[in-house]
Amino acid sequence: MNDLTIWTLDWVPEGPRGFVRDLRLRWACEEAGLPYAVRTVPFDDRHTNHLERQPFGQVPYLDDGDLKMFESGAALLHLAQKSETLMPRDPRGAAETLQWTISALNSLEMVTVPWWFLKISGQPNEPLTGWMTMRLGHLEDVLSKREWLVDDRFTVADLLMADVLRVPDVRAFGDRPATEAYVARVTDRPAFKKAKADQLAQFEAADAKR
Amino acid sequence: MNDLTIWTLDWVPEGPRGFVRDLRLRWACEEAGLPYAVRTVPFDDRHTNHLERQPFGQVPYLDDGDLKMFESGAALLHLAQKSETLMPRDPRGAAETLQWTISALNSLEMVTVPWWFLKISGQPNEPLTGWMTMRLGHLEDVLSKREWLVDDRFTVADLLMADVLRVPDVRAFGDRPATEAYVARVTDRPAFKKAKADQLAQFEAADAKR
Repeated sequence: MNDLTIWTLDWVPEGPRGFVRDLRLRWACEEAGLPYAVRTVPFDDRHTNHLERQPFGQVPYLDDGDLKMFESGAALLHLAQKSETLMPRDPRGAAETLQWTISALNSLEMVTVPWWFLKISGQPNEPLTGWMTMRLGHLEDVLSKREWLVDDRFTVADLLMADVLRVPDVRAFGDRPATEAYVARVTDRPAFKKAKADQLAQFEAADAKR
Repeated sequence: MNDLTIWTLDWVPEGPRGFVRDLRLRWACEEAGLPYAVRTVPFDDRHTNHLERQPFGQVPYLDDGDLKMFESGAALLHLAQKSETLMPRDPRGAAETLQWTISALNSLEMVTVPWWFLKISGQPNEPLTGWMTMRLGHLEDVLSKREWLVDDRFTVADLLMADVLRVPDVRAFGDRPATEAYVARVTDRPAFKKAKADQLAQFEAADAKR
C-alpha cells in the first residue's frame, strides 16, 4: 500500500481557517502530484480524541499505507523523500533542504509561535520582541540575496518557511521587504492556492452540519 | 572527503558549559563511532563572526567533507543517515525516528526554550506555564509506557529529546517520574558522558588563554 491520508479536524472556527497545518501536507502533495485523501477527527473533544495517534492532541497526522506519522515537519520531510519536486536528490541539495526545514521549525517558529501565542492570549509579548527582531532580521538578510532557500529552486524548505512567515501578525512585524516578497512569491504558487482553497471549502461545508 | 568537523565557540562562561549544542553532535558521533574534529570561532564577536556559515549567529555547525550544514537538529538527522546506531534502517523505524526528532524540536523545545528564556531574562514566564504543563504532561504519558521513543532501542530522537529535557529548570518543572527516569537513562550513556566531558575540558582549557 502506498495510500496517503492526511488527518485533520472536521471543523474549526473562523480564526484558524487557512492556517491549520494539514495545509502544509496538502500543499506538499499538490506540489509533488502525490494523490492523497483527507480524513477528520471531531473538533469537539479534540484535545483527547486522538491521543493514541498524536500524543500532544494536535493535527495533522499522516498515514502512508501502514506507516503512521505525526509532526507536520516530519511528515513534510517524509513526503519529500518521494519527490524531487520537494527536495533535490544530490547530497548537498538534500542536506541544505533538511537544514532550512529545521531552521523554519527551530530557529524561526520557536520564536514566532510563542510571540504570537502571548499576543493572542492578551499577555505582554514585548520580552520576546528583541528575539523576533533579531531572527527575522537575520532571515531578511538571507532572503535579500536569494529567491529560494536552496539552490535556485523551490523546495519543501520554502513551503515550510513561507508557512511560518505568512501568519498575519508575523508578516506585519517590522519592515522586511525581501521577506515580504518571498512570502508573496511562495504563496503565489498554484499548489498553495489549491491546498488553501480545499481547506477553506472543507471547513465551510462543515458549518452546515453544526 | 568524508571528514566530520563540528564547529563551536572557543570559550563560553560557566553558565552554558555542558549545554552548548555542539554537545549534541559530539554525542551522536560518539554513539555512532564516527571520527570527528572540533574547531572553534571566537566567543568575542560571536554574533557576527560566522554569519556566512550560520546566518543566525549560532553554533554548532558541521562540515562533512565539502558539505556544510547548520542547525543541530538537521545535522543530527544528517549524521543519523550514516549509522544504524542512530536511526533504524527500516521505513517505519526511520519515519518514527524522524517524527520524534522533530517533536523534540517543534513540540517540546518550542515551549521549553521560550519559557526558560523568559525566566533567565527576569521576565514573567507564567503565561507559558500552562503550555509547558500540557506538553510535558503529554510526554510523561508517553514515557510512562516505554523506555525509548522508537521501538525498544536508543535512537537519535532520544538523544535530542533528552538533551531538551535535561536543562535543569525544565528537569525541575513539576513531578514527572517517567520523564526523570528517561533523562537519567539516556544521559547515563557513555557517549553522552564522553561528549560532555570533552566540551567541559575544552572550555576549561580556554580559561587559561583569556
